[in-house]
Amino acid sequence: MFRPLLTVEEGPGPLAGRIGQGLALEIRRGRLRPGERLPGSRRLAESLGVHRNTVLAALRGLEAEGWLRTEPGRGTFVVDDLPDVAPAPFAPPGAAVVPGYALPPALPDLAWSSTGPTLLPLLGGLPDVSAAPADALVRAWRRALRRGPGVLGYGDPRGVRALREELAAMLRALRGLPIDADHVLVTRGAQLGLYLAARALLRPGDVVGVEALGYRPAWAALAATGARLVPLPVDADGLVVDALPAGLRAIYLTPHHQYPTTVTLPAARRLALLQHATAHGVALIEDDYDHEFHYEGRPVLPLASADAGGVVLHCGTLSKVFAPGLRLGYVVAPPPVIEAMARWRTVIDRQGDALGETAIAELLGDGELPRHIRRMRRIYQERRGILVEAVRRALPFADFTVPAGGMALWCRLPPEVDADAWAARALARGVAVQAGSRFLFSGEPCPALRLGFAALPGPKLEEAVARLAACAPPLG
Amino acid sequence: MFRPLLTVEEGPGPLAGRIGQGLALEIRRGRLRPGERLPGSRRLAESLGVHRNTVLAALRGLEAEGWLRTEPGRGTFVVDDLPDVAPAPFAPPGAAVVPGYALPPALPDLAWSSTGPTLLPLLGGLPDVSAAPADALVRAWRRALRRGPGVLGYGDPRGVRALREELAAMLRALRGLPIDADHVLVTRGAQLGLYLAARALLRPGDVVGVEALGYRPAWAALAATGARLVPLPVDADGLVVDALPAGLRAIYLTPHHQYPTTVTLPAARRLALLQHATAHGVALIEDDYDHEFHYEGRPVLPLASADAGGVVLHCGTLSKVFAPGLRLGYVVAPPPVIEAMARWRTVIDRQGDALGETAIAELLGDGELPRHIRRMRRIYQERRGILVEAVRRALPFADFTVPAGGMALWCRLPPEVDADAWAARALARGVAVQAGSRFLFSGEPCPALRLGFAALPGPKLEEAVARLAACAPPLG
Repeated sequence: MFRPLLTVEEGPGPLAGRIGQGLALEIRRGRLRPGERLPGSRRLAESLGVHRNTVLAALRGLEAEGWLRTEPGRGTFVVDDLPDVAPAPFAPPGAAVVPGYALPPALPDLAWSSTGPTLLPLLGGLPDVSAAPADALVRAWRRALRRGPGVLGYGDPRGVRALREELAAMLRALRGLPIDADHVLVTRGAQLGLYLAARALLRPGDVVGVEALGYRPAWAALAATGARLVPLPVDADGLVVDALPAGLRAIYLTPHHQYPTTVTLPAARRLALLQHATAHGVALIEDDYDHEFHYEGRPVLPLASADAGGVVLHCGTLSKVFAPGLRLGYVVAPPPVIEAMARWRTVIDRQGDALGETAIAELLGDGELPRHIRRMRRIYQERRGILVEAVRRALPFADFTVPAGGMALWCRLPPEVDADAWAARALARGVAVQAGSRFLFSGEPCPALRLGFAALPGPKLEEAVARLAACAPPLG
Repeated sequence: MFRPLLTVEEGPGPLAGRIGQGLALEIRRGRLRPGERLPGSRRLAESLGVHRNTVLAALRGLEAEGWLRTEPGRGTFVVDDLPDVAPAPFAPPGAAVVPGYALPPALPDLAWSSTGPTLLPLLGGLPDVSAAPADALVRAWRRALRRGPGVLGYGDPRGVRALREELAAMLRALRGLPIDADHVLVTRGAQLGLYLAARALLRPGDVVGVEALGYRPAWAALAATGARLVPLPVDADGLVVDALPAGLRAIYLTPHHQYPTTVTLPAARRLALLQHATAHGVALIEDDYDHEFHYEGRPVLPLASADAGGVVLHCGTLSKVFAPGLRLGYVVAPPPVIEAMARWRTVIDRQGDALGETAIAELLGDGELPRHIRRMRRIYQERRGILVEAVRRALPFADFTVPAGGMALWCRLPPEVDADAWAARALARGVAVQAGSRFLFSGEPCPALRLGFAALPGPKLEEAVARLAACAPPLG
């Protein structure tokens, strides 16, 4: 017999639907049992205070779903072949009985993103998003939408053709890459590019060389394939290339502005590396994440510009030059490698955001993005000078070379300094800085701080350094 | 001695930079050898027809990069420690010496996207993007940008909080899911959600059950983890659940509108599946890709709405209700599973597009998206009727049930029909349809066609069916 427990949930949606949901819940809870007859629709309508037609609509819905059956002249029944459900409290998904397996390492670089607005980020990878040309962005989107509904449909997993062509033209002009659109895969930011490169090149057990002082999120992407990473030494000129171990499948490196030290790999090492890679079939994953921000002379041409052997995968991003939120990166590689990455992309992510890609192509094509790059380069160069002066004044024991490019100073500290403890004290005073240990492959303590100058205007940079000095370790 | 081979590339960028590039190219080509002395800057300037200061700037740049060294009073030399480069043609990246390993299977479902505008897509997964509210989209983006530069920075890998809250509210109201924002991970379309679910749940050698007649891109995402897939039988009511093999780690299924047959899994099977999964610790990956498009009665509540054991991962997308180009999907799961997926997401893709996510949250919050869903439901319901009538008239041998929901008719054909050959003939006549074989796990021939009705207005639907009938196989 039907107990008057049926309730109608408050909420949006048609009343009949909510009545049906209530009845189905009773069945799932086991309060209405298989084979049980329901009260007549008139009685149900009365007990619920609704019109009988509403109840009939609810019952028809449940019948269509297979919860109820109606026997003409006899009434409406819960179907017989439902599994016998013991009355049980209906619990929202809580503790999962299907936990995952071992997780990839947490990437601490994102931790600061959840901190409050009063925090001063003295962080190396962070551009000044307040300078992004938001109005130009909106205009470009509107123009992209006017191109017709094609930009809203399914598309090429390598990215929209117009953007690949614009990027190829930009990279030919600014980085000397002898490429066209078929050498380009557009991704969401650099991270997906690195992950796709890893999936296309590596399988479990492969050995990949990485800079012993380097970029942890890239290591996570490479290791996610099951490859084994081995650290390669880094000195004051960047990656040391004259003692590469045998048997490497790939080397991941940041030759332009070494991450985190910002030094530029000298020409001799570049050529030696290309020769080694071509002779031994080693893939070089060249991460050129902030090529555009070079202040002394002109940027050095990338490894990919001199790659006669088809061994270089060149990764870049517009996150640094425009805004991380745009999520636009790219990989340049020989077309067979691009095809392999596109195949993986289809499985992982299907395709990019054709509308956003079309809009960015507009910004490249009409010169808006190049203008923005030039403007930001001047701003960042000025900020570099301000930070250099502030550090020289307030932290005289910090040893650094003024970087020719990039967005950060790499400050070596006296060996007795506990940089991690200092960074923690700084965070408590509202300044986010990165200690050397987070860039070391071993994770060991490292007496160094990386101080970014791009995200903050001059006065804030000076305030941040003052706060940092106020909690500096006692020295001498 | 310096040969007069140095050329200055035409192109953008400062002249000094282009001269420097030309010199570096000569060194890389081996035409300028290690230790070789360059002509004086005056002579270089004369031979190039440029001002001497321009040449000096180029030489200073090359010196900073480590290509050249200047000895006061003696001249400028190519550095000695460059590796000896044999003169060789500088080749653009061509055939890669680092081909990838085995690729994931090509997904044929994307093939039609490259076809021309005259093609009539009678395809099941394709919404009508021409109806997407483009103006509302642009307005929402502009509002999102006005929220401040935070939307352009780095953010939460689970998606922006505002969107997760809006999605949770929508899914509570429309799908009966007892969830809040912490149960939601926002992804790029459904494919990334499936891939992340697979990475969080599976490791090589795990066994995953899939519908023997089902969705191939999901299989590719699951198999990319190294898991082994086993097909589970599907009958006229959907997945058969009373003979599940032991030892499954997960089951991937489409219970709401079974893909490709569009039938709704009956309540009894749903409850039995939940009981089995909870008892044996099997994860259920529930793909509810077009829940909103249900025309008869109300949509059946998903498995996730009755999941007391925390075994269901519920995947959805706004690609079908809005536009595939938006790339917005989501996964609902117990928070520990969401955390695991977010960890993987950080490695693969770092985060979503915070700006786009904020804009979609606006569209959900102001009722624009619900209005659009109601409007499209009416349109698709009408198109369903038009296609049903056209097929009854023109293809009387096609056996189908009018689907209660979804975006396609599943037409069973007489066993002697070669559906693949028919689909190929149709494509030659400008109609894209999918033959049964592409949905079969075995890939064997399958006498069925899936005909989508969502993408085309009525007259085009009728024209497409007429073309299909004109190349129908001879029967009887």
